Amino acid sequence: MSNPIYESAYTKAGLIESMSPREYRLLRRQHKLIGETLGNCRGYISANVAIIPKEVALEFFLFCQRNPKPCTPMDVTDPGNPEPIRVAPGADLRTDLGRYYVYKYGELIDEPTDITDYWRDDLVSFVMGASPSWHYVLSDAKLQYTFVGAYVTNIQTIPAGPFKGPMVVGCRVFNDALDAIRAIQITSRYVLCNGAPVHIGDPSIIGIDISKPVVCLEGNPHLRPLQPGQVPVFWAVGPTVQTVAVAAKLDLLVMHVPGWNLATDIHLEQVALF
Amino acid sequence: MSNPIYESAYTKAGLIESMSPREYRLLRRQHKLIGETLGNCRGYISANVAIIPKEVALEFFLFCQRNPKPCTPMDVTDPGNPEPIRVAPGADLRTDLGRYYVYKYGELIDEPTDITDYWRDDLVSFVMGASPSWHYVLSDAKLQYTFVGAYVTNIQTIPAGPFKGPMVVGCRVFNDALDAIRAIQITSRYVLCNGAPVHIGDPSIIGIDISKPVVCLEGNPHLRPLQPGQVPVFWAVGPTVQTVAVAAKLDLLVMHVPGWNLATDIHLEQVALF
Repeated sequence: MSNPIYESAYTKAGLIESMSPREYRLLRRQHKLIGETLGNCRGYISANVAIIPKEVALEFFLFCQRNPKPCTPMDVTDPGNPEPIRVAPGADLRTDLGRYYVYKYGELIDEPTDITDYWRDDLVSFVMGASPSWHYVLSDAKLQYTFVGAYVTNIQTIPAGPFKGPMVVGCRVFNDALDAIRAIQITSRYVLCNGAPVHIGDPSIIGIDISKPVVCLEGNPHLRPLQPGQVPVFWAVGPTVQTVAVAAKLDLLVMHVPGWNLATDIHLEQVALF
Repeated sequence: MSNPIYESAYTKAGLIESMSPREYRLLRRQHKLIGETLGNCRGYISANVAIIPKEVALEFFLFCQRNPKPCTPMDVTDPGNPEPIRVAPGADLRTDLGRYYVYKYGELIDEPTDITDYWRDDLVSFVMGASPSWHYVLSDAKLQYTFVGAYVTNIQTIPAGPFKGPMVVGCRVFNDALDAIRAIQITSRYVLCNGAPVHIGDPSIIGIDISKPVVCLEGNPHLRPLQPGQVPVFWAVGPTVQTVAVAAKLDLLVMHVPGWNLATDIHLEQVALF
């Protein structure tokens, strides 16, 4: 931590935006990044990671197949191989995320900075694009909205094997319906990164009280009743996978810590729909 | 076969176009359809089917993940369940295709009309959308082309476990480049059904001699050198899966016979990209 360029979240945010994913992964591997972890490698896909035993990998694959909005795999490794060679060649999933949640039988037992000690030859890694990857596109499109927070919905995912549970969504509130429509169009292009929304309008339809997110931005001015004309839009998000995978009480489950995603070498526009 | 409406391919073609997928599957289950098998249930997705032991299902899923153009699963069943409940509820994959190829260790051992005798509790079925599903859309768009045939290319699929081999493509020749461009746009919408092409232009680049298809339409006038201005366009097709899965020499593999696809309840426009 001796290099001052990594000491301030604000400074970092400015510097990491233009870093290549490979550079950024190396800094994480060397434990040189702390604190703020978003806004890196502008344009490149930032991915959620779930690492599970091969014994349940088929079932988890089925779960992804049946629930593509919260979890569309960009890459799935062969058992025991920690390198996601199709989306981040040279990366090592054991070290390059920088912070991990390790669960045994559904209990969080560790939050290490690397998982070398937990690695096994039967582990299969699912790398799934995440919606923060397209955050900046909405800004570039001059859309006006507030990210309100994440919520657990009453939408049940389609189960597969031991994997089942509610969908978790992120909510953005738009003041202008045309902006909401444009956001739906734009995000529909990014099918590997949560894609199009799962709901628009009345939050109660999907079991949400908008004033009570499970994750929220501090001091968020939108945590009050929706105003007439405001349009809330809900996207499925990665924590769905965390909720479902933890509940499956696997003998071993490793996930990225929110914000500590995998920086992939895949640019959004390489895989966006036309 | 006593009902005359099923005796003639031409008569059938007229009648089956407007049938519901459910009706059509029942006729197949009852062995009432013979001969011509395309052009049914206009607008609904017709799917390729590969049925394999659970032991290699993860690897096959990985193969699909890495090679989405020839094989994008629309539905993958739980082991032992012959009902593809997400795309054809009520269907029975053991009977509703009407003709099957059964392979043991890579050898074709049977071509039964149902596979009840071969069914096992560990079989996983992959249902993958097929390009004939959008054949009529190209006609509706008034595009002028000739389907020339299918070819084995020098494009290698990305392997997974025992699954590897060359990509097989179908070729359509357009006289007008604008029609070829429009065909690329249109088929890009149908990602579950082979989607956008894998190649346009010079066939030799992908190792093809256009005069020598592995499958061709009888008397096809296009099996001659391409004329100036003609644009050949190549789409990945289902026989890629057959080639790769047979070569894997599984202890049991069941596939649909070409043309004897699964009629799903999913309309093309339900799952087309915007």
